[in-house]
Amino acid sequence: MRRIVTLTSDFGTKDGFVGAMKGVILSLAPEASVVDITHEVPPQSVWDAAFALEASCPYFPEGTVHVAVVDPGVGGERRALIFRTGRYFLVGPDNGVFSLLLKREPPMRVVSMENRELMLPEVSNTFHGRDVFAPAAAHLVRGVPLDSFGPEVEDWVNLHLPEPEVRGDLVLGKVVHTDRFGNLVTNIKMEHLPFPPEGAVVRAGGVTTKIYPVYSSVPKGAPLALFGSGGRLEVAVREGSAHRTLEVGEGDEVIVERAR
Amino acid sequence: MRRIVTLTSDFGTKDGFVGAMKGVILSLAPEASVVDITHEVPPQSVWDAAFALEASCPYFPEGTVHVAVVDPGVGGERRALIFRTGRYFLVGPDNGVFSLLLKREPPMRVVSMENRELMLPEVSNTFHGRDVFAPAAAHLVRGVPLDSFGPEVEDWVNLHLPEPEVRGDLVLGKVVHTDRFGNLVTNIKMEHLPFPPEGAVVRAGGVTTKIYPVYSSVPKGAPLALFGSGGRLEVAVREGSAHRTLEVGEGDEVIVERAR
Amino acid sequence: MRRIVTLTSDFGTKDGFVGAMKGVILSLAPEASVVDITHEVPPQSVWDAAFALEASCPYFPEGTVHVAVVDPGVGGERRALIFRTGRYFLVGPDNGVFSLLLKREPPMRVVSMENRELMLPEVSNTFHGRDVFAPAAAHLVRGVPLDSFGPEVEDWVNLHLPEPEVRGDLVLGKVVHTDRFGNLVTNIKMEHLPFPPEGAVVRAGGVTTKIYPVYSSVPKGAPLALFGSGGRLEVAVREGSAHRTLEVGEGDEVIVERAR
Repeated sequence: MRRIVTLTSDFGTKDGFVGAMKGVILSLAPEASVVDITHEVPPQSVWDAAFALEASCPYFPEGTVHVAVVDPGVGGERRALIFRTGRYFLVGPDNGVFSLLLKREPPMRVVSMENRELMLPEVSNTFHGRDVFAPAAAHLVRGVPLDSFGPEVEDWVNLHLPEPEVRGDLVLGKVVHTDRFGNLVTNIKMEHLPFPPEGAVVRAGGVTTKIYPVYSSVPKGAPLALFGSGGRLEVAVREGSAHRTLEVGEGDEVIVERAR
Repeated sequence: MRRIVTLTSDFGTKDGFVGAMKGVILSLAPEASVVDITHEVPPQSVWDAAFALEASCPYFPEGTVHVAVVDPGVGGERRALIFRTGRYFLVGPDNGVFSLLLKREPPMRVVSMENRELMLPEVSNTFHGRDVFAPAAAHLVRGVPLDSFGPEVEDWVNLHLPEPEVRGDLVLGKVVHTDRFGNLVTNIKMEHLPFPPEGAVVRAGGVTTKIYPVYSSVPKGAPLALFGSGGRLEVAVREGSAHRTLEVGEGDEVIVERAR
Repeated sequence: MRRIVTLTSDFGTKDGFVGAMKGVILSLAPEASVVDITHEVPPQSVWDAAFALEASCPYFPEGTVHVAVVDPGVGGERRALIFRTGRYFLVGPDNGVFSLLLKREPPMRVVSMENRELMLPEVSNTFHGRDVFAPAAAHLVRGVPLDSFGPEVEDWVNLHLPEPEVRGDLVLGKVVHTDRFGNLVTNIKMEHLPFPPEGAVVRAGGVTTKIYPVYSSVPKGAPLALFGSGGRLEVAVREGSAHRTLEVGEGDEVIVERAR
């Protein structure tokens, strides 16, 4: 069976960075199937990569190797880690990029990549995606045991989304991500609401709307709120961009208020 | 033999949407080969997707499953369809996205996807690409018969390009698409011209040129018209952008006049 | 074993151009594995493609077919070539796009593609990526011998990077490429320095810095110089864009001066 390696990075696609990683993987593990998640993570934005990984990785088959290279600390002191979860291997720098995914797929074992024999013969100081992470993914596909890569570690960088604040009939949340369509993804999940979502009022950027089941519940161009495909409350504009229309972005407040 | 699934969407590549679809397909049909056509269709632009599908799908081998997810009506009343043509399966929302392709590959049978057992166990209201269309593609690859998906339908949304107007020695057309290079693709095909293309005069945005065989027929930076790789008359600027140089875009008029 | 075909172009990913090429290749050689290097080469920029190819192709396994379609001369007089190097086949227009790669992988044999039977039945004047280069790649994967494509050629277009100039304790170089992160890649390699890199002073756009081993050698937002993953001296800003911060771009001067 072909084993899958997914790639997530901030490398963009105008240079040869991603191609080099694919070449390394397919040279060492010709049986691998390399799948792009995204390479358009904004440069150095660990959070954006974390959202993309959370939204896509859980849908891959057991045994998939997920590689994430958003790596502002490359060449410095930061460790390079492999997480073994119940279903996957996660390969990347120790900067929290897998934090959201690890909430769904807790790690069973974590090792620090220190074995130079499992890297390219020459390791640059600026491109560990090619020299360290791609070879590691290929070796995992080939069945190299986890402990060959280096010592087990017990601690690693873990990022946390801010929790929404509940004050009586109000839930105070924040926009934590803006997607391609300009939808404003918040840190509010259904479980945070101490009241039913039906009829609840949602305020963002001076606009007031309600929680609807689908985009087409409102007219084109109108704002709405709904629970998105990742389970988080999103503020959207039907067939438009809430980000641009409401002039609201990451870090801005979104308030949900119990229906009266 | 590996069966191919192609993906066309307006999801962009900065989020995890496309990755989630690929994960679903490869989980259900590990033998599938997933090929990206484009994910950079402008948000909700069914027409742009229709042009990309027409330009690429006919070149794929028989049996390919083509999935298109440009889906402003997601979660609402619009149906989800599978078209069986002579050579392909086409999977997507009932909004006309396959209209141009279906002119070349007329449908032999069309079904509405209603069988929940062939979708993901939980179907969101906002992301049928992952929950409905990707599983359908995988099941088609696995050989699930068309009739298992739902009832046959006899009508569906069909979009039509405006026909050019012929007035004596004039053909009045329109720009229907602008490509990445800024070439202005019109609705005029060779068969619309009631006169030979040689020497015919082409007018667009205040500029006058002729129909040439190749870009290099004119000097760099000069405008020209030619029949493009899809058979439509295009107005271009050699090694430049006709869209920017002539300030002409979709919906604007292009006139062809018989040579004198 | 699956044979790999890599694709590099300036086609972007909003249209169906790349999809059409993939369809042609997979129709003629279903066993091929098609891998994207990049399609975001700026329109007609042969140099940008040359850098992407140099950075990625050498990492692919022996026998890979690398296709590059940045082809402003399409349909005109320029020849279509296949280069056989020690490890690869290189397929593309005769405009120098493989020049940097060929310095590392010198050609053993070069042929001009003239055999119409190895192209699509209809060859357009504007899209040889689909009609000429994609079929050639597929036929190479299938084992069609090089000489079937056309006559051997002894000369071809070769582009040269400007060499840096050494004046005593000064090395005068130029920015030859700007990558996705805004790093300024120069034409200066370690071998050009007649003095040790340690402590050497680097000047670009009015800023003075030194050659460091890694990005994290300097504080966030500070400029630095380092030898990048391709072996060339780069001027960067840690977690920022040197291109934007220093207002320096391609063709601008970078000076390295011996440490005092």
